[in-house]
Amino acid sequence: MKKEMFGHEISVLRDTFRRLLHRKAKTNLVKLIDKTHPADLAVIYRFFTDNDQDYLFNLMSNNEYAAEFLSELDDSILEDLLEDISPERIIPIIRTASSDDQTTILNALPEDKSKIIIDSLHTDEQEDIEEMLAYPEDSAGSMMSRDVFTLNEDLTAGEAINDLQNQEGAEMVFYLYVTDSENHLAGVISLRALVTTHASTKLKDIMIRKVQYVRAETDQEEVAKIVSRYNLLAVPVVGSNEEILGIVTVDDVVDVIREEATEDFLQMAGAGKDREILLKSSWGNARARLPWLFATWVGGIITMSIIGFFENTLQSLITLAAFIPIIAGMGGNIGTQSSTIVVRGLATGRIDLGSDFKLIIKELSVGLMLGGLYGFLLGTLAYFFIKDVPIIFGVVVGLSICASMVMAASIGTTVPLLLRKLDVDPAIASGPFVTTTTDILGIGTYFLIASVLLPL
Amino acid sequence: MKKEMFGHEISVLRDTFRRLLHRKAKTNLVKLIDKTHPADLAVIYRFFTDNDQDYLFNLMSNNEYAAEFLSELDDSILEDLLEDISPERIIPIIRTASSDDQTTILNALPEDKSKIIIDSLHTDEQEDIEEMLAYPEDSAGSMMSRDVFTLNEDLTAGEAINDLQNQEGAEMVFYLYVTDSENHLAGVISLRALVTTHASTKLKDIMIRKVQYVRAETDQEEVAKIVSRYNLLAVPVVGSNEEILGIVTVDDVVDVIREEATEDFLQMAGAGKDREILLKSSWGNARARLPWLFATWVGGIITMSIIGFFENTLQSLITLAAFIPIIAGMGGNIGTQSSTIVVRGLATGRIDLGSDFKLIIKELSVGLMLGGLYGFLLGTLAYFFIKDVPIIFGVVVGLSICASMVMAASIGTTVPLLLRKLDVDPAIASGPFVTTTTDILGIGTYFLIASVLLPL
Repeated sequence: MKKEMFGHEISVLRDTFRRLLHRKAKTNLVKLIDKTHPADLAVIYRFFTDNDQDYLFNLMSNNEYAAEFLSELDDSILEDLLEDISPERIIPIIRTASSDDQTTILNALPEDKSKIIIDSLHTDEQEDIEEMLAYPEDSAGSMMSRDVFTLNEDLTAGEAINDLQNQEGAEMVFYLYVTDSENHLAGVISLRALVTTHASTKLKDIMIRKVQYVRAETDQEEVAKIVSRYNLLAVPVVGSNEEILGIVTVDDVVDVIREEATEDFLQMAGAGKDREILLKSSWGNARARLPWLFATWVGGIITMSIIGFFENTLQSLITLAAFIPIIAGMGGNIGTQSSTIVVRGLATGRIDLGSDFKLIIKELSVGLMLGGLYGFLLGTLAYFFIKDVPIIFGVVVGLSICASMVMAASIGTTVPLLLRKLDVDPAIASGPFVTTTTDILGIGTYFLIASVLLPL
Repeated sequence: MKKEMFGHEISVLRDTFRRLLHRKAKTNLVKLIDKTHPADLAVIYRFFTDNDQDYLFNLMSNNEYAAEFLSELDDSILEDLLEDISPERIIPIIRTASSDDQTTILNALPEDKSKIIIDSLHTDEQEDIEEMLAYPEDSAGSMMSRDVFTLNEDLTAGEAINDLQNQEGAEMVFYLYVTDSENHLAGVISLRALVTTHASTKLKDIMIRKVQYVRAETDQEEVAKIVSRYNLLAVPVVGSNEEILGIVTVDDVVDVIREEATEDFLQMAGAGKDREILLKSSWGNARARLPWLFATWVGGIITMSIIGFFENTLQSLITLAAFIPIIAGMGGNIGTQSSTIVVRGLATGRIDLGSDFKLIIKELSVGLMLGGLYGFLLGTLAYFFIKDVPIIFGVVVGLSICASMVMAASIGTTVPLLLRKLDVDPAIASGPFVTTTTDILGIGTYFLIASVLLPL
């Protein structure tokens, strides 16, 4: 029995590999690979040098193991590794891989290499693979497994079990999909129901006719929503004639959910959307983050001009400057809260049904409450603790922070809702964009209020 | 066949329900409930009034449907609903519910009501339920299903299939767990392998002995990592004597992954960690967000005092004030980028193996590159576009923005790594804390550099 391998144990495994790699202890490494789950090896693989990675991969003599290992690697590691591997080594791996893993591996190869490999396969294999590769990236078609086992509705349970026992390829037969005489998806039946039914019963009499399915072009995020909402283990993918093209299994959906969440996290922080940003060089990393910082930079320059414009006001009461950071900071913070709540609410389907207006009103009132509270606190503090300021100064500061927070909450709510209407991913709206806009408006309002209300 | 029900279709469903609820069209509602998947009904349920919610729930005469529906509701909606429902109505639902749904429902009930319900059950049911409720929240024990089907290793495949066919409760038999004579978990066998093996083969000869398992007290996040890493459909939960207590299925793991991501999102934005923040009243919502804003507020006051301290410097060159927002903003932005990358890297296991130091160095150099670039740009701009400033002013501004960004990147990286070492959830470190610290240090450094370098 194998205990869960996490934290400490996985770093022990990594260190053992490293030690053996250092000594180039081939026999021991082969044994260790054999004892290590391909998913575990894929996790620690990123911590080896390029040379060690290649060396280790060449020791994986079992093609099935190698295929599973490759499919578990993160995209950018997979691409790096495959660059160094000859087509002759990849061909037998592709042959044993399941159809969704074939797509993953071939998509990670440079075009010319992938062509060499496909050309070396049998014609029918080639056609299957080319069809898979033709589906758009991140669609159900590109992530489905073609190894799906279907049964005709006129078969009996006994015949179906017989068929199943002679079936080689499809290893994940948890649901058995049933087709009608025209090969359309007609129903589903669980293996358990099949086994526990009288042998002469026809499938069409025991199958469940309500089947959740997706189209080949359905986006992977939609597929994930369906699988997770209906607690499915797999969902069939159908073509334009309602024929079954393949299935997407829940383990791939789990990966999609994690990946989409990671992308949203990074986008909201304005750090691009490349999940493998940690693997990039410092310069690659900097380049991915540069554009979003540029937005902040431009915003900062606009804010700078605004302050410059009010230089006379500032000159007459220099203390105004001290409140710039708190007004910008409180606005930025509440704006980020609002946009995060909305972006995540959209992603998880908690906001989905035209309740936009109510939501904006609600966030506005949250902004008013919190803005009122912190405005009052800051205004009072400003009046009592800063020497020689008129009482109106407290009012200016209090009003400004309240205005800044109300505007920020509204912008943080409105912008993601608007982007969704425009079919743009709302995650990119948060973070830099919201905080920058908030800075500009908050500080502009502050100086405007000051120049109007203060007796300068 | 049922098409995927999303976006448009789900709002049509909601509107149909609303129309029928408005007319109190009981017969039609019963029919519509019957045609609606409990998971879909759970999704639109939040959009009905409290009265309509109660009315609708009382129309669900099928206890199995009601149990599934309840288990699909978000916690806070479930709690609200159950408050209005009599124990007599809940008891039969609890009886038909699967054991993990029983825990969910009972945990959502007020203590006294839950006691009444448990007391009304048979003694053996009571014991089972009380055992489940005793496991810590968010542990494998509290989310497992006890309806697990086990077989003794000395059985033959034929006997096993017989046993299986007489088995009522366990509906999710995808893996069959095999136990030895002492009732310890000894192996696993797929239903498919069982069906395709000669009837006289003993289970111990065909079972896979390497089984991934978890303990009852294992945290749900760890369970999710294991299930997703090894692409499992279920993982057995074992007790202190290696006996099987239950299984956690992948559909529950999918929920955990979504929920944990949502909590991390909210925490990083300083908006609490209640996934149901959208359901709260404006005041409840404001209260959840208030403490984090307070952190920013205190930080703002510290920054204010720093600027106050340098009032003389500022007085001699008022233009310094105009650069406050851009220096704070650029620092805040790059700090958020770094902390998000690190927090998400920790959550997804991409940073897991004592590579802390390397990571800090890397983020520091990213900070230097980007800080150098934007510092140079801003310094140049400051010198050429602001009239009557000495060249050293450009140097001051450029240096300051660079210092602010380098410090922010380091803080954004170090704080989550440090918190993880202290066993505190790193997600709470990001957002408000990082941006506030960055504001204080960035602006402090700016004025320090200015007061030293400028000829005032």
